[in-house]
Amino acid sequence: MTTFVINERDRFPQTRVEISGRWLFGPGPSNADPRILAAMSLPPIGHLDPDFLTLMNESQSLLRYAWQTENPMTIPVSGTGSAAMEATLANTVEPGDVVLVAVKGYFGHRLVDMAGRYGADVRKITKPWGEVFNLEELSLAIEIHKPAILAIVHAETSTGVRQPLEGLGEICRANNCLLLVDTVTSLGAVPIFLDKWGIDLSYSCSQKGLGCPPGIGPFTMSPRAVEKMQNRATKVANWYLDMSLLSHYWGNDRTYHHTAPINMNYAVREALYLLAEEGIENSWKRHQENAESLWTGLEELGLECLVDKAYRLPTLTTVRVPDGLDAKAIATKLRIEYNMEIGLGLGELAGKVWRIGLMGYNSKPEKVLLLLAALKKVLKP
Amino acid sequence: MTTFVINERDRFPQTRVEISGRWLFGPGPSNADPRILAAMSLPPIGHLDPDFLTLMNESQSLLRYAWQTENPMTIPVSGTGSAAMEATLANTVEPGDVVLVAVKGYFGHRLVDMAGRYGADVRKITKPWGEVFNLEELSLAIEIHKPAILAIVHAETSTGVRQPLEGLGEICRANNCLLLVDTVTSLGAVPIFLDKWGIDLSYSCSQKGLGCPPGIGPFTMSPRAVEKMQNRATKVANWYLDMSLLSHYWGNDRTYHHTAPINMNYAVREALYLLAEEGIENSWKRHQENAESLWTGLEELGLECLVDKAYRLPTLTTVRVPDGLDAKAIATKLRIEYNMEIGLGLGELAGKVWRIGLMGYNSKPEKVLLLLAALKKVLKP
Repeated sequence: MTTFVINERDRFPQTRVEISGRWLFGPGPSNADPRILAAMSLPPIGHLDPDFLTLMNESQSLLRYAWQTENPMTIPVSGTGSAAMEATLANTVEPGDVVLVAVKGYFGHRLVDMAGRYGADVRKITKPWGEVFNLEELSLAIEIHKPAILAIVHAETSTGVRQPLEGLGEICRANNCLLLVDTVTSLGAVPIFLDKWGIDLSYSCSQKGLGCPPGIGPFTMSPRAVEKMQNRATKVANWYLDMSLLSHYWGNDRTYHHTAPINMNYAVREALYLLAEEGIENSWKRHQENAESLWTGLEELGLECLVDKAYRLPTLTTVRVPDGLDAKAIATKLRIEYNMEIGLGLGELAGKVWRIGLMGYNSKPEKVLLLLAALKKVLKP
Repeated sequence: MTTFVINERDRFPQTRVEISGRWLFGPGPSNADPRILAAMSLPPIGHLDPDFLTLMNESQSLLRYAWQTENPMTIPVSGTGSAAMEATLANTVEPGDVVLVAVKGYFGHRLVDMAGRYGADVRKITKPWGEVFNLEELSLAIEIHKPAILAIVHAETSTGVRQPLEGLGEICRANNCLLLVDTVTSLGAVPIFLDKWGIDLSYSCSQKGLGCPPGIGPFTMSPRAVEKMQNRATKVANWYLDMSLLSHYWGNDRTYHHTAPINMNYAVREALYLLAEEGIENSWKRHQENAESLWTGLEELGLECLVDKAYRLPTLTTVRVPDGLDAKAIATKLRIEYNMEIGLGLGELAGKVWRIGLMGYNSKPEKVLLLLAALKKVLKP
């Protein structure tokens, strides 16, 4: 074999940045519970190891509890929340299927983009960013478009809106339509009754309500959604996220599909155990109470929230940037002076809002105090 | 809002398995260096944090060194090696493109399956499992099929074969064909000169030669491959893995695409720094030497390797199961008595071979001794 001279151009990067952590009050990742970080650093074992298979069962069970579902096909996908998001569409959309997307923020637009890539006939209805749809509007759109799938975001991370979902599942069932709901910024932190609300497909992430680092994406599909997948005329147009294959690994066969991200699975199991120990309804209550303290404190600072209180997410608050202030400059100041991250506006809201997260491990009274104290300092120096 | 009674069916799983680690001598994951596990447990920071952006640059640089490439578009994909594998095809295949796959094991078949899902006109040539293709066979097939992409596995994890690749890049270029090479079980451990060999697309994993836990997938594409992607008439049929979008996050714009798996990125950076500190050629030499000790030891135990020594991978050795022995029973005994994992045969080789890995942190003289001693005990009790 010919050997060549080793190219050392890229062997010594000019930096070696040291990671020391920050207070993460943005849209996620949020700070992780030390128990979760300890779990992540346990030694890896094999993806077919009996201990790992047992751990998989535990995570599936706990994820069902977190979502309040009994869906057998409930798993953490081996990617971030965006991979789990794509998995919902990839498995159920066949070319030509009408997919109706109710768009009221950035992530609604992403659903439109993704559905189109799987050949869907995508229809959309829209609302201004910061508002919600009412049941009549959604019902009417279903009658007009007769979609195979209605996709809607429960907790819009770009606007801080909580979309009411009660009653929508019944309308979808009556119209032979699957209901797909984004619960990225709500799972574990905001009331969701997946089965009671008739939701067929959902996805989330690890780094918000669950307080785990990002890298693994909770995913669930109802028996109705599984049936649509099983009746496909074509293979799922995505190998990595193909649930018809993955169900054999996560089900009884334990057939190898891909090597699972072992340590991320340790982490999400620990996060889910923490949630089960607390009790989901206590976590929901905690997030609501700390968010209300934040809102009161913001008002005292003379700041205004974008979203009407009735539809405001407890996990993610969008705060209007007062006239004359530079949103990014304030966020940078917070980072430099107090080692603290808050989020900037996305899309239509770029420059107009900050996005402040209080999620999972960070939804605590003392963190609300800290955040408000720091905001006060940078706003009124 | 109506509230429902909390469903506690899945709140308390019947188990809570404790992870205590094993000696991982299977096809991967391999044991991780403690420095990498420590890096994984650092607190997460934001995916747009300046420190994280710097860390991304470092990983890109070090990945280029590991692959011996100067490809700007070299990144760790936010999923396992299988996601990076799919990314190579998803970004470059357009419906109707001829993709020629040289199949000589399980992962060749997977390339066929994946390419088909992206609408490729898939052609294949095959070799018995355990053998390699020679340059004339590949050259002839290229002339016959005139593919847009030739896909071949450098290190077949299912058979333990190392496919010679020198000269193939020139033939592909002369035929206006992209060369796609699976380096899952070779990156960091087996000589690869990506640019010198004219490879246009490659993918790997974190949990083998790099000695990191699984969950992040090295990916690289040459300027020729980028050009094919940029000339697409259609969007990449996979949002999560769309490099035309991801290049804006990993490039100068730093546009948000998805929240990166922060802690997995800490881990892979640390793994790559370890490799750069050792020097890639020293790592290659170490893997070769320890593999040769293993092969000698196996011979002394009366065991036979499947693959001809000239084409044997140093990272993964397939060992024939002697007549009358139950492959699975022996592997189980190793796990129960010595807390040690070795791999079973996949596909055509199920029941016929064991797959023994010595990769990354595990490629050490003392681990060879330990493994051989344990094998001796369970084979000749």
